[in-house]
Amino acid sequence: MNQKSPTISCQISPPHRRYGEAATGMDVLSREELTRLRDISKGGLHETLRRCALAVLTTGTESDDPRAAQVRYPDFDIEVLQLDRGIKLDLRNAPATAFVDGHLIYGVADLLFAVVRDIAYTSNEIQSSELFRLDTNAGITSAVFEILRNANVLRPNIDPNLVVCWGGHSIMREEYLYTKKVGYELGLRALDICTGCGPGAMKGPMKGATIAHAKQRRIQNRYIGITEPGIIAAESPNPIVNELVVMPDIEKRLEAFVRLGHGIIAFPGGVGTAEEILYLLGLLMHPDNAGISLPLILTGPECAAAYFEHLDRFIRLVLGEDAAKYYTIVVDDAERVAKLMSKGVKAVREQRIRERDAFFFNWSLSVPLAFQKPFEPTHEAMAGLRLHRDQPRHELAADLRRAFSGIVAGNVKEHAMKSIERDGPFAISGDVEIMHALDELLASFVAQRRMKISGEYQPCYRVVR
Amino acid sequence: MNQKSPTISCQISPPHRRYGEAATGMDVLSREELTRLRDISKGGLHETLRRCALAVLTTGTESDDPRAAQVRYPDFDIEVLQLDRGIKLDLRNAPATAFVDGHLIYGVADLLFAVVRDIAYTSNEIQSSELFRLDTNAGITSAVFEILRNANVLRPNIDPNLVVCWGGHSIMREEYLYTKKVGYELGLRALDICTGCGPGAMKGPMKGATIAHAKQRRIQNRYIGITEPGIIAAESPNPIVNELVVMPDIEKRLEAFVRLGHGIIAFPGGVGTAEEILYLLGLLMHPDNAGISLPLILTGPECAAAYFEHLDRFIRLVLGEDAAKYYTIVVDDAERVAKLMSKGVKAVREQRIRERDAFFFNWSLSVPLAFQKPFEPTHEAMAGLRLHRDQPRHELAADLRRAFSGIVAGNVKEHAMKSIERDGPFAISGDVEIMHALDELLASFVAQRRMKISGEYQPCYRVVR
Amino acid sequence: MNQKSPTISCQISPPHRRYGEAATGMDVLSREELTRLRDISKGGLHETLRRCALAVLTTGTESDDPRAAQVRYPDFDIEVLQLDRGIKLDLRNAPATAFVDGHLIYGVADLLFAVVRDIAYTSNEIQSSELFRLDTNAGITSAVFEILRNANVLRPNIDPNLVVCWGGHSIMREEYLYTKKVGYELGLRALDICTGCGPGAMKGPMKGATIAHAKQRRIQNRYIGITEPGIIAAESPNPIVNELVVMPDIEKRLEAFVRLGHGIIAFPGGVGTAEEILYLLGLLMHPDNAGISLPLILTGPECAAAYFEHLDRFIRLVLGEDAAKYYTIVVDDAERVAKLMSKGVKAVREQRIRERDAFFFNWSLSVPLAFQKPFEPTHEAMAGLRLHRDQPRHELAADLRRAFSGIVAGNVKEHAMKSIERDGPFAISGDVEIMHALDELLASFVAQRRMKISGEYQPCYRVVR
Amino acid sequence: MNQKSPTISCQISPPHRRYGEAATGMDVLSREELTRLRDISKGGLHETLRRCALAVLTTGTESDDPRAAQVRYPDFDIEVLQLDRGIKLDLRNAPATAFVDGHLIYGVADLLFAVVRDIAYTSNEIQSSELFRLDTNAGITSAVFEILRNANVLRPNIDPNLVVCWGGHSIMREEYLYTKKVGYELGLRALDICTGCGPGAMKGPMKGATIAHAKQRRIQNRYIGITEPGIIAAESPNPIVNELVVMPDIEKRLEAFVRLGHGIIAFPGGVGTAEEILYLLGLLMHPDNAGISLPLILTGPECAAAYFEHLDRFIRLVLGEDAAKYYTIVVDDAERVAKLMSKGVKAVREQRIRERDAFFFNWSLSVPLAFQKPFEPTHEAMAGLRLHRDQPRHELAADLRRAFSGIVAGNVKEHAMKSIERDGPFAISGDVEIMHALDELLASFVAQRRMKISGEYQPCYRVVR
Repeated sequence: MNQKSPTISCQISPPHRRYGEAATGMDVLSREELTRLRDISKGGLHETLRRCALAVLTTGTESDDPRAAQVRYPDFDIEVLQLDRGIKLDLRNAPATAFVDGHLIYGVADLLFAVVRDIAYTSNEIQSSELFRLDTNAGITSAVFEILRNANVLRPNIDPNLVVCWGGHSIMREEYLYTKKVGYELGLRALDICTGCGPGAMKGPMKGATIAHAKQRRIQNRYIGITEPGIIAAESPNPIVNELVVMPDIEKRLEAFVRLGHGIIAFPGGVGTAEEILYLLGLLMHPDNAGISLPLILTGPECAAAYFEHLDRFIRLVLGEDAAKYYTIVVDDAERVAKLMSKGVKAVREQRIRERDAFFFNWSLSVPLAFQKPFEPTHEAMAGLRLHRDQPRHELAADLRRAFSGIVAGNVKEHAMKSIERDGPFAISGDVEIMHALDELLASFVAQRRMKISGEYQPCYRVVR
Repeated sequence: MNQKSPTISCQISPPHRRYGEAATGMDVLSREELTRLRDISKGGLHETLRRCALAVLTTGTESDDPRAAQVRYPDFDIEVLQLDRGIKLDLRNAPATAFVDGHLIYGVADLLFAVVRDIAYTSNEIQSSELFRLDTNAGITSAVFEILRNANVLRPNIDPNLVVCWGGHSIMREEYLYTKKVGYELGLRALDICTGCGPGAMKGPMKGATIAHAKQRRIQNRYIGITEPGIIAAESPNPIVNELVVMPDIEKRLEAFVRLGHGIIAFPGGVGTAEEILYLLGLLMHPDNAGISLPLILTGPECAAAYFEHLDRFIRLVLGEDAAKYYTIVVDDAERVAKLMSKGVKAVREQRIRERDAFFFNWSLSVPLAFQKPFEPTHEAMAGLRLHRDQPRHELAADLRRAFSGIVAGNVKEHAMKSIERDGPFAISGDVEIMHALDELLASFVAQRRMKISGEYQPCYRVVR
Repeated sequence: MNQKSPTISCQISPPHRRYGEAATGMDVLSREELTRLRDISKGGLHETLRRCALAVLTTGTESDDPRAAQVRYPDFDIEVLQLDRGIKLDLRNAPATAFVDGHLIYGVADLLFAVVRDIAYTSNEIQSSELFRLDTNAGITSAVFEILRNANVLRPNIDPNLVVCWGGHSIMREEYLYTKKVGYELGLRALDICTGCGPGAMKGPMKGATIAHAKQRRIQNRYIGITEPGIIAAESPNPIVNELVVMPDIEKRLEAFVRLGHGIIAFPGGVGTAEEILYLLGLLMHPDNAGISLPLILTGPECAAAYFEHLDRFIRLVLGEDAAKYYTIVVDDAERVAKLMSKGVKAVREQRIRERDAFFFNWSLSVPLAFQKPFEPTHEAMAGLRLHRDQPRHELAADLRRAFSGIVAGNVKEHAMKSIERDGPFAISGDVEIMHALDELLASFVAQRRMKISGEYQPCYRVVR
Repeated sequence: MNQKSPTISCQISPPHRRYGEAATGMDVLSREELTRLRDISKGGLHETLRRCALAVLTTGTESDDPRAAQVRYPDFDIEVLQLDRGIKLDLRNAPATAFVDGHLIYGVADLLFAVVRDIAYTSNEIQSSELFRLDTNAGITSAVFEILRNANVLRPNIDPNLVVCWGGHSIMREEYLYTKKVGYELGLRALDICTGCGPGAMKGPMKGATIAHAKQRRIQNRYIGITEPGIIAAESPNPIVNELVVMPDIEKRLEAFVRLGHGIIAFPGGVGTAEEILYLLGLLMHPDNAGISLPLILTGPECAAAYFEHLDRFIRLVLGEDAAKYYTIVVDDAERVAKLMSKGVKAVREQRIRERDAFFFNWSLSVPLAFQKPFEPTHEAMAGLRLHRDQPRHELAADLRRAFSGIVAGNVKEHAMKSIERDGPFAISGDVEIMHALDELLASFVAQRRMKISGEYQPCYRVVR
């Protein structure tokens, strides 16, 4: 088949840690752990591992069609080999583009082992352990903490400096250049970057920060990518990412963002970005979180001004004018964004010290169960969302978040895409005013071509007014 | 009371890791873990913690009377304080000798947190977890592995170079100087040291190696001390020890020694050292361990030649001439000891590579359940030991080990000492020939003043021929 | 005047070295040295220092008009303050763009002190010392060595991996992107970059390599910039440059390139790049250098193919077909360039080992006095160049190099520009065939707009046929 | 001859710097420098090099007879080999005791290259350069600075913490143990040690500090030894010394001590120690040095109390009661010594900051030419010393220092010993009272066996009253 691309087969060992590098947690394993790692490449997890690994290996691929890599590398396979002294990965027919003169790029190898580590950890420790009660609020937060700690992402003795950047993976060139500029300004101010680790707004800030960190001669920089198995296939991690975590589902990924980050920037994006913003607003508006410092800035270049106007109007209308006090919109001023963020992060630091909370994990933030429970976007679940004004705003925000989440799934996730192919678009209903606003917002996304990068967009939803 | 010594009260935080230092595992804790740490200073473990902490703080004290430190610092207390961002230790009336101009010596603080870490870990993770089956062979080995890993003592990417040194805590000056000389020669050859971490033969090799490591400009040196709650109080860790592990009991401590070490040196000692040698011979003679490389050298200065002659004669008589092929006796030749050990450790390295076993943990070694089960030295248990020739040699070795273990307890451990004060010495019986040899060996220890350093020795056993 | 830009005044200390960073040689100074440093900001060197410092502070400025920065920052001044414990720089009215929230960018501060260091060193140690005979071949090479060593650019114990990249500072976007791509491919192969440290082809490879080094998780990267006082003002060093050296003149700068580099890549450029290529060919064709390994690759994207065709034709015609065996032309294949270079550098390594030459300085290369003596491009000197075929090819190459050097000066250096404004263009004469070829080559540079980026190009030379 | 000891011949390269270690200045050398290094092993310096190298290689030898090592290793030789890429040392018949299993101890190799470095530097740069005026006060201080800087002993960015320890190389065991205790207490307080680098009081403090630094987990420790060619042969540097400097003569060595050290401790010793104390008192009492902070503590165990009583009495009588305010005598209280020193060093730090003087070199201290000029102890020079009260006290101190210096030479230096064998003891004359006191002091040294460790002491002087 002429779509097949060149491949390489080889076995790789975990990269040796260099001086001063943090350990991966992959180098001192018990025999049980080795066995479990080996097993994930055999049982039901094999396909998940294969897909995630392929995503890491095809980093830099432009298309966001989740099936493209599968088509180009149909014979790719991965197996975890157990040696008494450690593990090896056996790669078969892996994309040649990940190799330089026959050697796998160090950063790619690093991410590959991170994928193995997280899939094994979440499937074993978290999901089969009796220590975690995944039906309770505290239990889920514990699981998020343990996954992040196991991934060695929780670092003590570092002052708050982690900025989470959200935004679309397929944005306009001008928007992309703007995300680089913002990343550059953040980097000049010694801030580190955390994103969803795909292309577009998830890559730009990291590239910008890399240059700025070099100019400031900063050495131990952090470019954290947080993903989940359903997303990673569509959004390959950029290998600038030097710390990758694969969370088990969307909700734990969102919780990881808000517990790790000391400030959040939302760049233009589509429904995914809207989902993230709604999620965070729902939390910040929750009475339990009154007084919590967590700066949120929505920003883009001139050409994205309309995007934020629509979003701002939608939020004010649906969640009330009050909601707008939780974020600042900055148009086309990367330096101002960085200054605001730098100041906001300092306030976070002071609050953490005052309240004796950890710097590396935001324990004080309350994330109610409604925001934690995995939402499975079936036709039934989508139809059952409560999008009415007669409920607390944070509950409405939670269901709106689910609505957007379902639309994201309908757009890019294989399972949902198939069910829509079969049963037609999701039906979403609620208060007339909300429905009207939602319809308008989604229409503006379509008009701005933020739903999908290639081809004509076929909506995966219909708003029932 | 005029025996009281000067004290200082203060609160201390975990020492900040310096560049290149390994993490302690005490800096990124979940809230549950913080709570559990706090709790160990409250419940039934409080007394254990207090005693171990006092031992660390009185490091360098000469007496081996377990009650001396208690008498001198009767008001000492320790509490673990829980902060959201971490823990602190609240020390009250702590020995002033551990402080320099009001600051706790860095190494002492480090060991103090190691004590807290291990007591908390073993009481919680190991003993209450459902993951560990402490009644099975594999379960106990798992527990040993997990405790060592949690203590960050298992280090990947280091070539085998760890020499375990056994020997008495109260030895003659000439013997002590010899242990320093051996340590010096080992250190010149880039070997690291692991001991039971008390004074005497447990301190000398570390001091000698420190000087040699400085001469070789070696920087990341390891001086590992492995102890257990009942021993630490009698044998305060020397603060040269830069990695301390408190194993939960004697048997896990012994297993830790043989799984960690790449070679073992036994210096002169008393029954404790005999116990250790018997333990190791029992393992090495076990059919499952045929072919395992683990060099064992018995050595001392000229004046200790008699000690090893007695021991050698006892071993050959009781376990058979064959047993002698598992060790080499070297009298008064520190350089030869180091050369032999250096060569032996290289052979261990080759075997591990050949058999793809880890460098940091000797998985291949079989440690049968009989060697793992905690032995509680009651009068009844001591009387029930099977010291007969009509059993496999390794089983006889296991019971001999227990006999010596009971005598150590009767000599220095509070609980056993009290029961002997009450019910008289332990009775030990068995084959006439063995009993005869045992009696003679123990008598030679008494004659060589290896049973106790101060006062007249009152035997805590009687051999029933 | 409304052209003035925002400025900041402040005093700065030498950046503290971070762990693992090489010392700058600015931190342990004798009192005499402190006095001499202070004095360079006073005497005849003050203007040189001021101009170089301003160039460093305006890094990133697009224009190549040497007078632009002067116009925008007419009040900028710099003074070296002497403290007993070290020096400080007193900056007055410095470009605000070099600061982030009031703090000078670390990398810019670093380069500023490098400028002070080199100007002081070359003016004192080299030019007034009796140790250096600047009229002899060995004396000049010694001076080059000492300046580089004083700048701490000569690093022992590093395998050959330094690729010198030459090329224009004002090139087309497509060409610029290509230089980034090549830098990226070099960086993936653990190669470091050395350039003339301005914009264009001197910046692209460094930016590309920065990203690749991050992907390979390489930490101690070298981005070396080598300039001289007359060039730096026109070609501000990019602050990715983390090691800057200001050589005293063009010829020592060229010698520094060829003695430091383990391989050389020439991207498209104008007469400056032609000068560099001619210089190197002159050396490589010299009988004394027969057998010396020093890979030279000429490369550019498709659109630059014509440039190299012209150059190749000119070289073959003037220096003979033989000359072409010293370089490889690669069109639009960044990966191939990097592979060839990687292989070539390995050959250099082997040759150095074989001939026991240093890795950090190419002692074996012969650089005759004709290539070392500063060429002052006056009308008279330009007219006196011997551009005839009846001389050894390397001598012809030397004079051709001077001809190009004069044209560069006439294009961008203030002094030469003024003399041309006054006396008209330089006259260049020689063999008819050479003159013809030269005229054609220069005309093609003009046609390709490689002479100057802005405005109509007024030739600073005329070819006398 | 049966006195010959085992030897090894080999070639060694400069030790590779380990991560974080300071460079030696031996790794990036010009070809001229390589040639000069090679030449020192050929010309008139060959014998000096041979003797110093042998001293380094016989470190740990007990005897202080300068001729012992020569007798035991009569065939030892050293040659500096020049390679283009660096140098190698060719050792022939070197003492086998400096090797471990055929490998030269890393620290010994380090010191060997330091010896080569300093002999070459002082013979070339300092003595033949026209830059140094060795007949002027400033010129000599410059030379001291340059030698120390070339040896990389001047370190920026370190807070004052260097304690110079003086005292005898052959002292009583009890005194030696006390020097270890003081070193231990200094080490606990993060102080580094500088001594004359031989045995006895020059080794004890370093050994004590090594243990304390280990307890405090301090890693980058400094054990500086400063010697000169005539002394090193008699006082082999202990390999704990990790920075060795060979100054060209006694006076520059003394100046190095007082310019480097932030505090000085004098332990018991013989005339050499008295010389050092007199030197320092002469400086501190000089009017130009009024107000200079430089703590001086004289200390020893109980058994050395008499020594300091005699010395104190002598100083008060000869230099006046006033002189006693420049030092503190502490008997048998190591902790108090360390506390006083720690406090004194803090005062030095504040003074340096206040007066903007460097931490690494005491520029403010005035060392008059009388203290700098090499004193050649001939019979004539000794007879010509002015030991009268009718002169400024600091001048008297200077001549007294010379008197002691001559006696040291007569005791241990080959040249002086031979001249005394030939012409009889030095005659020393002056004021009756001073002569009386001097005679008494020297007699007490003889009585306390501080003149020489072995055999009957034959005075090399006679006091002419």
